[in-house]
Amino acid sequence: MTDRDETNIVKNPARRKLLSSGLIAGGAAALGGVFSKSAIAAAPDPLITEIQDWNRYLGDGVDAAPYGVPSEHENDTIRRNVAWLTADEKASINFTPLHRLDGIITPNGVCFERHHGGKAVINPADHRLMINGLVDTPLVFTMEDLKRFPRTNRAYFLECAANGGMEWKGSQLNGCQFTHGMIHNVMYTGVLLKDILAEAGVKSSAKWILPEGADASHMSRSIPLEKAMDDCMIAFAMNGEALREEQGYPLRIVVPGWEGNMWIKWLRRIEVGDKPWHHREETSKYTDLLKSGKSRRFTWEMDVKSIITNPSPQAPITHGKGQTVLTGLAWSGFGKIKRVDISLDGGRNWQPARIDGPSWDKSLHRFYFDFDWDGSELFLQSRAIDEDGNVQPTKNELRAARGGNSIYHNNGIQTWHLRPDGSAENVEIS
Amino acid sequence: MTDRDETNIVKNPARRKLLSSGLIAGGAAALGGVFSKSAIAAAPDPLITEIQDWNRYLGDGVDAAPYGVPSEHENDTIRRNVAWLTADEKASINFTPLHRLDGIITPNGVCFERHHGGKAVINPADHRLMINGLVDTPLVFTMEDLKRFPRTNRAYFLECAANGGMEWKGSQLNGCQFTHGMIHNVMYTGVLLKDILAEAGVKSSAKWILPEGADASHMSRSIPLEKAMDDCMIAFAMNGEALREEQGYPLRIVVPGWEGNMWIKWLRRIEVGDKPWHHREETSKYTDLLKSGKSRRFTWEMDVKSIITNPSPQAPITHGKGQTVLTGLAWSGFGKIKRVDISLDGGRNWQPARIDGPSWDKSLHRFYFDFDWDGSELFLQSRAIDEDGNVQPTKNELRAARGGNSIYHNNGIQTWHLRPDGSAENVEIS
Repeated sequence: MTDRDETNIVKNPARRKLLSSGLIAGGAAALGGVFSKSAIAAAPDPLITEIQDWNRYLGDGVDAAPYGVPSEHENDTIRRNVAWLTADEKASINFTPLHRLDGIITPNGVCFERHHGGKAVINPADHRLMINGLVDTPLVFTMEDLKRFPRTNRAYFLECAANGGMEWKGSQLNGCQFTHGMIHNVMYTGVLLKDILAEAGVKSSAKWILPEGADASHMSRSIPLEKAMDDCMIAFAMNGEALREEQGYPLRIVVPGWEGNMWIKWLRRIEVGDKPWHHREETSKYTDLLKSGKSRRFTWEMDVKSIITNPSPQAPITHGKGQTVLTGLAWSGFGKIKRVDISLDGGRNWQPARIDGPSWDKSLHRFYFDFDWDGSELFLQSRAIDEDGNVQPTKNELRAARGGNSIYHNNGIQTWHLRPDGSAENVEIS
Repeated sequence: MTDRDETNIVKNPARRKLLSSGLIAGGAAALGGVFSKSAIAAAPDPLITEIQDWNRYLGDGVDAAPYGVPSEHENDTIRRNVAWLTADEKASINFTPLHRLDGIITPNGVCFERHHGGKAVINPADHRLMINGLVDTPLVFTMEDLKRFPRTNRAYFLECAANGGMEWKGSQLNGCQFTHGMIHNVMYTGVLLKDILAEAGVKSSAKWILPEGADASHMSRSIPLEKAMDDCMIAFAMNGEALREEQGYPLRIVVPGWEGNMWIKWLRRIEVGDKPWHHREETSKYTDLLKSGKSRRFTWEMDVKSIITNPSPQAPITHGKGQTVLTGLAWSGFGKIKRVDISLDGGRNWQPARIDGPSWDKSLHRFYFDFDWDGSELFLQSRAIDEDGNVQPTKNELRAARGGNSIYHNNGIQTWHLRPDGSAENVEIS
């Protein structure tokens, strides 16, 4: 398309400044007014008569797709996995295609998955949730029982503690889908966990809960009662419809701002106890080995973080220099995002991005940075700051603090090297 | 399940009051503590060993569904059409399954469709948007050009002017999917139309725009320039991902609060003019014939409205009497919803519902009304009031004002007759 840069029918310099490459005006000139009646009458454009033929045929009617799917032209908007990452795809991860999305809602069809024994397939009519342990009355709920409690709707991000884990030892994966795609952001409908626990009656000696999944791995994690009684939900719907099977259908626990691994899917039981259980997924896994050789016992909150989704290695700039939209996502397990800064030169200079769309507690924030790219190489970085004042660190600051053994909780600043041809690569700035 | 009502192991009267039918306690007793280890050791429950067997097998791995779909147990969460409503499904409507959804987001797969020449299937690389007419510089934009303008994210309802049209002559369709399902609520990503028009430069004589679709019907509607320069968007994404083909992929215009028919899909051209065009869809259709024999020239705004989605004819109460969640949706083309009132007795007495989730301008609002159903017959109604003070009228008030010829803009209060067996029917209260 660069040959169009030479044309110029935009007459207003103020407008030309916005689109300094002249591409839009170029488009108009090159195509000769494709849809203008006079142009078509004078010389039919092959684009409209041969290629753009979709207005010449009746399309499918309304009974074609009772449950619709995306256009085949969007077939790169899919979850992808990395074969070498795990021994078996039944206990593995696939990644949200962040570079193909916009706004803050992650569509249900591409929410990243992490299974430990494959995806359980449950008939909701036969599913039960049990509350037992340090309660006045152990209870078993059907799905219908749970839907009789007062409902609420809240959007939260879910991030795997290992998101970005491969980047601790240097840039390894070339695309934000793989470096940062273990995250999704969903509007949940459900009931507050505290209402369900109150129904059973929590004993005064209780201090912890253990949610447990009905899948083959019967996943479980210890959660302090204080968090359970604060903002945890028992969710049965996501983004308006029933949970997807990959996300725990028919029931999951929502643990806002905390490690995704704690958001037990296919939830079948919540035990109430007076101490943590120290199950597998909070001892041999999901702990942080420090350089001292000691491990953090628990690291629940997901730290303040951000990523530029476009441009990025999977989403190069293809329009050449000039007016460019840089966009990305920011989030914090401690609350709302207050500010996102952008650097084009690898962290030497910073300018504020524009946050657009809802700004909610522990939910993804969408940011944009509209700039005039001169076609030179750039080192793109984003840095998020949350309402508690937490600032996203550099990777080297993290390494200095945590040593060389880390897997989880990498919230370091990511760098994309943007080349003059518009392609981008995952690099590190020392 | 009513035989469980006789059991009673909930010991706290305060909790028994919340679930007055004792169903939850009953569930626990009848199932004998399905998931409790002691119960299983003593006498394995057939439910867990034979029916609830999903924890005994490894499920699908993460590579099974690059783009996921709902559970087969949710196969009633689909769009449905009404065969007798139109002569051909290529110029017809299917309806959003409102009774199967919760929250305010309509999932992309079930957003209602209205086509006038079937669904166009467009390759976005070949698609163009032309701006012509009373502009300084006619322009043609590629999809890539449009994505270089500053983006914004906003949620709006889209309601067909004919939503509820079959109800003018009395209750005809038995379910909110059919009476009120020509509506969806989506978070759009796109650019402001005013920015695109400014790029072309709107002449001072301009007063109207005509967006035009690239489908076989080349749909078009006249829109006042004032609205175009206010909150209209050119959208390319919905709920985080690219528009669905049924919703105008790759480009549609968003006309917040106004008739859905004006939200031109597969947008290929916007003509700027000094008067309305009076095309077919704003003369022979989408006008309101009054009892005087005269028609309203234009009726753009969608009036304040609400509907109880559960319980409803397609979603009966199956849990018997006791604690019951009533829920529904409210909206107004004039702004936010201030209040929703609920009547259980056909409009004689009213109580306020609880609005939960985001309250946005010209967007669906979710309401809940938690009540203790005594098992007697009820006549359920909801009545919405918007921030401008507009109050949803009764159907008879509408008929008195508008006469017997109306098709469009029925925002009358709907009544569901809830019977003692939990079933519900579409009825009218005289």
